[in-house]
Amino acid sequence: MTATPSAPDTAGPLLSTLEAPAALRELSERQLTGLADEIRAFLIEKVTAVGGHLGPNLGMVELTLALHRVFTSPHDTLLFDIGHQAYVHKLLTGRAAGFTTLRQAGGLSGYPSREESPHDVIENSHASTALSYADGLAKARQLHGEQDRAVVAVIGDGALSGGMAWEALNNLGGAPDRPVIVVLNDNERSYAPTIGALADHLHQQRAQSDDSIDWLVRQAPAARFGGCDAEADGPLPLARSLFELLGFAYIGPVDGHRLRPVEEALSLARELGRPVVVHTVTSKGKGYRPAEDEPQDRMHTCGVIDPHTAEPLKQSSTPSWTSVFSDQLCSLGQRHENVVALTAAMPGPTGLARFAERFPQRCFDVGIAEQHAVTSAAGLATGGLHPVVAVYATFLGRAFDQVLMDVALHRLPVTFVLDRAGATGPDGPSHHGMWDLALLGAVPGLHVAAPRDATRLRELLDAAVRYEDAPTALRFPKGGVGEDIPALERIGPVDVLHRSGISDVLLVAAGPMAAPAREAALRLEGQGIGVTVADPRWVLPVSTELVQLASRHRLVVTVEDNIRTAGLGTALARALDDDGCGTPLRALGLPGRFLPHASREDLLRRAGLDAKGISQAVLRARAHKPHQQPDPHTPAEVS
Amino acid sequence: MTATPSAPDTAGPLLSTLEAPAALRELSERQLTGLADEIRAFLIEKVTAVGGHLGPNLGMVELTLALHRVFTSPHDTLLFDIGHQAYVHKLLTGRAAGFTTLRQAGGLSGYPSREESPHDVIENSHASTALSYADGLAKARQLHGEQDRAVVAVIGDGALSGGMAWEALNNLGGAPDRPVIVVLNDNERSYAPTIGALADHLHQQRAQSDDSIDWLVRQAPAARFGGCDAEADGPLPLARSLFELLGFAYIGPVDGHRLRPVEEALSLARELGRPVVVHTVTSKGKGYRPAEDEPQDRMHTCGVIDPHTAEPLKQSSTPSWTSVFSDQLCSLGQRHENVVALTAAMPGPTGLARFAERFPQRCFDVGIAEQHAVTSAAGLATGGLHPVVAVYATFLGRAFDQVLMDVALHRLPVTFVLDRAGATGPDGPSHHGMWDLALLGAVPGLHVAAPRDATRLRELLDAAVRYEDAPTALRFPKGGVGEDIPALERIGPVDVLHRSGISDVLLVAAGPMAAPAREAALRLEGQGIGVTVADPRWVLPVSTELVQLASRHRLVVTVEDNIRTAGLGTALARALDDDGCGTPLRALGLPGRFLPHASREDLLRRAGLDAKGISQAVLRARAHKPHQQPDPHTPAEVS
Repeated sequence: MTATPSAPDTAGPLLSTLEAPAALRELSERQLTGLADEIRAFLIEKVTAVGGHLGPNLGMVELTLALHRVFTSPHDTLLFDIGHQAYVHKLLTGRAAGFTTLRQAGGLSGYPSREESPHDVIENSHASTALSYADGLAKARQLHGEQDRAVVAVIGDGALSGGMAWEALNNLGGAPDRPVIVVLNDNERSYAPTIGALADHLHQQRAQSDDSIDWLVRQAPAARFGGCDAEADGPLPLARSLFELLGFAYIGPVDGHRLRPVEEALSLARELGRPVVVHTVTSKGKGYRPAEDEPQDRMHTCGVIDPHTAEPLKQSSTPSWTSVFSDQLCSLGQRHENVVALTAAMPGPTGLARFAERFPQRCFDVGIAEQHAVTSAAGLATGGLHPVVAVYATFLGRAFDQVLMDVALHRLPVTFVLDRAGATGPDGPSHHGMWDLALLGAVPGLHVAAPRDATRLRELLDAAVRYEDAPTALRFPKGGVGEDIPALERIGPVDVLHRSGISDVLLVAAGPMAAPAREAALRLEGQGIGVTVADPRWVLPVSTELVQLASRHRLVVTVEDNIRTAGLGTALARALDDDGCGTPLRALGLPGRFLPHASREDLLRRAGLDAKGISQAVLRARAHKPHQQPDPHTPAEVS
Repeated sequence: MTATPSAPDTAGPLLSTLEAPAALRELSERQLTGLADEIRAFLIEKVTAVGGHLGPNLGMVELTLALHRVFTSPHDTLLFDIGHQAYVHKLLTGRAAGFTTLRQAGGLSGYPSREESPHDVIENSHASTALSYADGLAKARQLHGEQDRAVVAVIGDGALSGGMAWEALNNLGGAPDRPVIVVLNDNERSYAPTIGALADHLHQQRAQSDDSIDWLVRQAPAARFGGCDAEADGPLPLARSLFELLGFAYIGPVDGHRLRPVEEALSLARELGRPVVVHTVTSKGKGYRPAEDEPQDRMHTCGVIDPHTAEPLKQSSTPSWTSVFSDQLCSLGQRHENVVALTAAMPGPTGLARFAERFPQRCFDVGIAEQHAVTSAAGLATGGLHPVVAVYATFLGRAFDQVLMDVALHRLPVTFVLDRAGATGPDGPSHHGMWDLALLGAVPGLHVAAPRDATRLRELLDAAVRYEDAPTALRFPKGGVGEDIPALERIGPVDVLHRSGISDVLLVAAGPMAAPAREAALRLEGQGIGVTVADPRWVLPVSTELVQLASRHRLVVTVEDNIRTAGLGTALARALDDDGCGTPLRALGLPGRFLPHASREDLLRRAGLDAKGISQAVLRARAHKPHQQPDPHTPAEVS
């Protein structure tokens, strides 16, 4: 990364002199208030300039200051669940200068990164993992006799709705001799407001707080003592929290924007020397009016916007894949009463919000709970409905077993709509949707479609919900959908998009790879090579028509924005091998490695998935030269 | 399946006349007690004769009778989590005759099966799914205006430690207008005693019950009324249950072996018309002394045993793969202080029990919580330890995302030991470990080994825990390990096991496929075909040495007991394609379909993975004939 040693000019006087978090302990209360203001101003300026997670971080300012004043990172370990709320942590650990390059190729990661700092531990952006890490770390500390090194995990109320968090709570609370501090950052939201019984319970806990005291401490089964401002022997008006029943001491609710009470709560949590939940109440978007006023998700993320008006400074001229899906799902909902939709806490980003508005009884937000989303869909299908589970491709990995066993083994008609499939861009390695074809290709009886354009998306979604005894999936990428690409001919499910006189090379392009494949075909024709370009539409399983088409060519080259080690290419290669036809095949796709953050276009080009890369790969394959996978970690030469 | 319409002679007088569950309502209390005795005698006789899940079903006798008397299946829906405790349900729904063929090829499934009965819904044997199905079904009932059809899910206390169950509780409890009845079958055990804070909480709930009353009803926040034998206005001595805090009415604890109170509790649960948890307390192995006295898992499963002495009637003469692993892990634990072990509630079956005895501080049972097991291991590795996660191959699918993101993205040295890999046998489609190579093959930087014999298992496990910055996995099957198969030569990681004069065919055999591959080579040599047999030892990623060896042959045939559509075969084929070398490859393995229950040997033979099937496939490939995948659903001809 490109961070320079000194902080940039735009940082305020305190922020620009801050070199290490230890210096925070030297500051007065007044200075700390000033620093919090500086941090908010800095975040607003920097994040609106390049885009990023603004709302969650504005809610974390005082809490992060308190964490770094009470605990000594990295001797003590601070774990940030999901990680998109770690911007303040990055600022306080010497990375202010990097914010001009936030989430850009070669720049500061939008998540913690061990390469960037010894203060970072969890790089994964998937929810609900931090408590499990904490459990493992606390066990390691205990075995090494290092229990003076505190283990602190910050987790949102939304992430607590994920099953992993429960599994971890069960383990943490069951070990009273192993101290772990769980800081619940309760802002009442995932993207949208958090749903479910837990959210109701936390709401009750918050509602029972009393202005006369900052917070309370309670420990099951009987030990009780008052909070910092409470009478030690005073009455305890609060109903017991769930955390106490699970073996934790409970401290809270504490206003997460008041530094002193938060610090005192955290200090006490450390002193208790046992599993503790510190329930902090924060406000997503705090201190930035456009975020505080945003009704959907309090500006969970923003693009490049005017910091004053919050108006987008970069407007996309084409509709997004998501919006095409969103419209078509509403149309389907109108035509088919049995179509219902599910989201794991992302009604807005997955495009379900409009369906939810039109058919509120038929749209279910289940919390950050992909496993439950899939098996609840299996239950809905068992009950005669056709569920559409809308989920980012990267999060489907959370529910592979449920897709395989609960849906496919039962031959249930559930449609998975995988948005953000392929290289996604600025969110980096744990957000790229590169593995779904590897996963879904292993699921018996499941049919996967990859639309190449808006017309195909509508057509394939309609076809998917007509399946009555098998699961289906659609995958499409992030961003704007291009122009429609018409077919010359349809053979079975396969669209032929381009055909030269001679049947020399068959380019099989999955979904949005059709456009660069067609362009590559034109380049190759310029060199006298005959190329057919085919879009299989239904990419898995491989159709007999595609195998037949392939066997009539001298070379097959597949192109997909999935790992090339498991997907359309490997499936077609095996089908050709099984057929004994001997046509050589070369599979192009994303490398089977973790990819860095960068723009989608950049990553695809670097992986050789643009017209130039595809045509070069065809030439190498024709010459029987080994495949050379470009390395997306190094910027590609300009084509 | 082969069930005949009439019940067998061995059923008692009541059981043999029972044709449909509705008839249960006609029976007197005395007859029901007699029927319960008959059912226990029947289960003990039948299950000890063929092997199966004995302990869990002996604990479910009265509870299942009560469920079928209070509810009307299939109008009302009874969902059995995991399903191995549904034997009594099978008996009461007309399937007594099938028990002589239980879990045998073509016989009665050990789990619910929709093919067998309209009373069955969930066929999956993985834990913690039933509440999610119930959520989906209840939503479907509500949309269809069919809320008179009750949705009842039976789940064990062990399965509640799984995260999916939490995700479902959060959804169920958050919808007070959508009635679902959760029957908690609390026997204090998974296999071994259930661990964690939830188990402690349930223990407290049980301990607070009072002999003078059968059970209590409580509904958060304030509504309270007494249970069937309780004073309606009497004191409520119990602390609130976790379920109340999550929006459920709580009924319990009720003795699950007393039919009348259980029925009254279930009837009330239905009347309440809201989400309810009925907390029943049962005893695993109830009524069969050898099971009640079994200290580890109360005879969770048994093989073929003498019903009186419980002594095995079939003794294995060779050690199991599990026991070799178990011994070697203890040896490693002795030599390497940093080796720790984790299990998701299966210390006995995965072979960790001995390690746990010798190194109690270094062995962690985390509950039925594969996701947490993997990420907790990531935390342990971050803390400087080398965790070994011992898990059945089929359950790894529960934690793919955690392996990928929490372990591999962080390049952490965690070793996954996948027992029961490949075709497993009598537990059927959801227990076969057929997908792990598809999953692990997609994980960057992870190395997978497949030992062919005991010596290789020890050697590869030792090598795996020496990795310091990458995850590793070992996979081996169920059952006894055969004789050691010596290598003629080692090339890089590859062992050459057999070599003819001419380099005609290369047979690449993963793990235990080495034995039939060597035998196939001898058969082929008898027909004048030169065969090399290689064991790659580290099967994924494919080594350059294996690619070089392959390119020196005219045909490569891979053999693995994983789906043939994604694993060693597809990876080697792609490597050869990438190399541009043109050697044809045929991949043999299990078909990409769900496989039925049958013995492992039977399934492998039917899939063409014995010596005869392998040699026939080689001959077809040499003749450029298309691959013919034998169908494991039809019995194979005798070879």
